[in-house]
Amino acid sequence: MSFHIVLVNPEIPANTGNIARTCAATGTHLHLVRPLGFSTDDKVLKRAGLDYWHSVNITYYDSFDEVKAAHPEGRFFCASTRVSKCYTDYAFRDGDFFVFGRETKGLPQDILDAHEETGMRIPMTDKVRSLNLANSAAIVVYEALRQNGFPLS
Amino acid sequence: MSFHIVLVNPEIPANTGNIARTCAATGTHLHLVRPLGFSTDDKVLKRAGLDYWHSVNITYYDSFDEVKAAHPEGRFFCASTRVSKCYTDYAFRDGDFFVFGRETKGLPQDILDAHEETGMRIPMTDKVRSLNLANSAAIVVYEALRQNGFPLS
Repeated sequence: MSFHIVLVNPEIPANTGNIARTCAATGTHLHLVRPLGFSTDDKVLKRAGLDYWHSVNITYYDSFDEVKAAHPEGRFFCASTRVSKCYTDYAFRDGDFFVFGRETKGLPQDILDAHEETGMRIPMTDKVRSLNLANSAAIVVYEALRQNGFPLS
Repeated sequence: MSFHIVLVNPEIPANTGNIARTCAATGTHLHLVRPLGFSTDDKVLKRAGLDYWHSVNITYYDSFDEVKAAHPEGRFFCASTRVSKCYTDYAFRDGDFFVFGRETKGLPQDILDAHEETGMRIPMTDKVRSLNLANSAAIVVYEALRQNGFPLS
């Protein structure tokens, strides 16, 4: 059993490094949509995640459409502060994809519009614009794991 | 309603900055036990969390005993990879404290021994030694919020 995290144009290498660590910790596949805001042999990325980079199943794409074309049966849950349904309102299951946008802008509106039925929000106060990207990914993946009885081997 | 995060001797400013952001996002109080591995006016800390630093209720202490003495009614849940009970096995409630140790070593064994009944583990594969500290804190706080219906105003 495994889940999938899709990062669309992530900008900050330490965040992607931390998400790679979470993926290694949970058997989650990582899908990275270019352009990335950093080189994957960037020294900062290595510092943030190299110990785990080779324990993670990572696939690269040139567009989000490519991710979807490669996984036609997948359910794609798109995280945004601009949608209303809470991530805990969904019943996640094996093979689900959790999609996150860039740190500064989130997901493009056209992706959100195309996934109205599977948008998900992480509740927060109005004191912040958003949570840190790596924290958001960890919160959602661990909710999916919790719902499924932590199927980690 | 609010929860509390206690960081005992955190070492990496970006982690504490991210946790401050999570605290701002959730109305969680932050308790920092010295020594810290950085100055709280450190430029890196400011970059990681300054936007949110002033939105967070932060208290400083010189020992974990001081935290406990200041909150004699508090329930202190201590996160560790060296305990067996899962964080989702607890029913968290208003005012609970979630305690995390330093990035490299976790919590001191004497603190874990004194809290055997409230130790909590975040499940993970054997591919990693631990999760990132800020991710761990976010996972636990959002589980506590979920259990309580996301009481964010």
